[in-house]
Amino acid sequence: MTISLRKARTIIRKTLDKGHELELKPLSVVVLDAGGHVQAFEREDGASPGRFAIAHGKAYGAIMLGMGGTAQMARAEQQAYFMGAVNGLFSGQVVPVPGGVLLRDKKGAVVGAVGVTGDTSDNDAAAAKAGIEAAGLTAEI
Amino acid sequence: MTISLRKARTIIRKTLDKGHELELKPLSVVVLDAGGHVQAFEREDGASPGRFAIAHGKAYGAIMLGMGGTAQMARAEQQAYFMGAVNGLFSGQVVPVPGGVLLRDKKGAVVGAVGVTGDTSDNDAAAAKAGIEAAGLTAEI
Amino acid sequence: MTISLRKARTIIRKTLDKGHELELKPLSVVVLDAGGHVQAFEREDGASPGRFAIAHGKAYGAIMLGMGGTAQMARAEQQAYFMGAVNGLFSGQVVPVPGGVLLRDKKGAVVGAVGVTGDTSDNDAAAAKAGIEAAGLTAEI
Amino acid sequence: MTISLRKARTIIRKTLDKGHELELKPLSVVVLDAGGHVQAFEREDGASPGRFAIAHGKAYGAIMLGMGGTAQMARAEQQAYFMGAVNGLFSGQVVPVPGGVLLRDKKGAVVGAVGVTGDTSDNDAAAAKAGIEAAGLTAEI
Repeated sequence: MTISLRKARTIIRKTLDKGHELELKPLSVVVLDAGGHVQAFEREDGASPGRFAIAHGKAYGAIMLGMGGTAQMARAEQQAYFMGAVNGLFSGQVVPVPGGVLLRDKKGAVVGAVGVTGDTSDNDAAAAKAGIEAAGLTAEI
Repeated sequence: MTISLRKARTIIRKTLDKGHELELKPLSVVVLDAGGHVQAFEREDGASPGRFAIAHGKAYGAIMLGMGGTAQMARAEQQAYFMGAVNGLFSGQVVPVPGGVLLRDKKGAVVGAVGVTGDTSDNDAAAAKAGIEAAGLTAEI
Repeated sequence: MTISLRKARTIIRKTLDKGHELELKPLSVVVLDAGGHVQAFEREDGASPGRFAIAHGKAYGAIMLGMGGTAQMARAEQQAYFMGAVNGLFSGQVVPVPGGVLLRDKKGAVVGAVGVTGDTSDNDAAAAKAGIEAAGLTAEI
Repeated sequence: MTISLRKARTIIRKTLDKGHELELKPLSVVVLDAGGHVQAFEREDGASPGRFAIAHGKAYGAIMLGMGGTAQMARAEQQAYFMGAVNGLFSGQVVPVPGGVLLRDKKGAVVGAVGVTGDTSDNDAAAAKAGIEAAGLTAEI
């Protein structure tokens, strides 16, 4: 099972809505499928040009390692050279901070990941969590 | 001036609608801003995993060279080594075939590009053109 | 849905068995999941060291493009610069010849891909097809 | 001398058996030959997509440096810039933590390496050691 485009759209819209409600800076949101491939993305007006890469890096690391951004950041802080080596393996595509979130279905299987960037990492993660739960999925932040 | 997220969403929806009307295979559509940075993307269910990269490569070449996919293909057929060299410059991110389309405003200025992939290159370009015109912009295919 | 390790093992064993029956050179066989990630691989004694990369490139192209190796080769022969551009997008990881085979389930959904290398491309594809069918899946060569 | 496919299969099966016995998370196991080339690999169902790269990075570093993962980690902790430089040489393919294990024959010659990932680094190494010894080889963890 992997995420559908319909679900991905819902996650993006609800994440952006939450950002507006919390008065965050303009957000960018990517949804990847269970294999780490882009399903949908939106970048709000006023966000900087590099935001696709950052959103993607947060979500891609979550898929490849099977860990949310919070757990990735803990590992990076304990063992910086391990996350450095991981980035070598994945061509520098992993951004190990909150805002990368695993999507799980009701049975606990990973069906994709979301990456949010634009405000603080913690606010990015909070918006992602709200968007994912509004779509009926479980967020592992 | 560059494309707004609102316009980008309209282009994607109208391009996908045209694909359904023409009974094309599942499409993937990217919209880049005037600097070649991703503004929005959707991949329909059933499309293969690599479609983000292909859609992006069509649109990115259009922005970086200031040429639609049709003109890029003509150049590739006349002078394959030139397009090979271009791909060296841009880290292999250029796909010089129809389906990469420049977006122009009413004064003729480039405001972004669209990349469509999934069916034949010509059908991809036709769907993109319909989507762009439905959003009130001019398509250079 | 994606391929299980149990099915992947069956495909590899049956592909190697077919190679022995046809008296082919030592084969190497990779099975990728629906997202293009390695599930299982075996290289027979006597095969050259680079065979993992070749088997992987055949299967990876099949997943990313949603096309078997035979269709990829036809496209490469018609439009060499297109397959060259595709290889730029995918970091040179695509080998567009027979021996890359899509795996479909009974409903036609792609659940993975197989890459076989070691003998002629056509013999590689024949062995893959036999292995896949022995595992109860459909091969798109 | 290098590892045979038959031995590689035994190592993988016995390593996975040990993981089940210890109730570890789903494991991924690669066996490289004495030249650092992939001989065999299996990824258990439920393991994240990036596990081939991580298993490979552990084993590849062991071969290229002639050191097990434990010794590599000690060096990384003493001299992070050295392991960073090593990763520059080997295109970012080295993961210097336990779970990368050198295979030696009875005379002490290196005949290959094993990389295991999925649980903690120490548990990965313990499972690898059990698998290697069950195959009649000596493990340098």
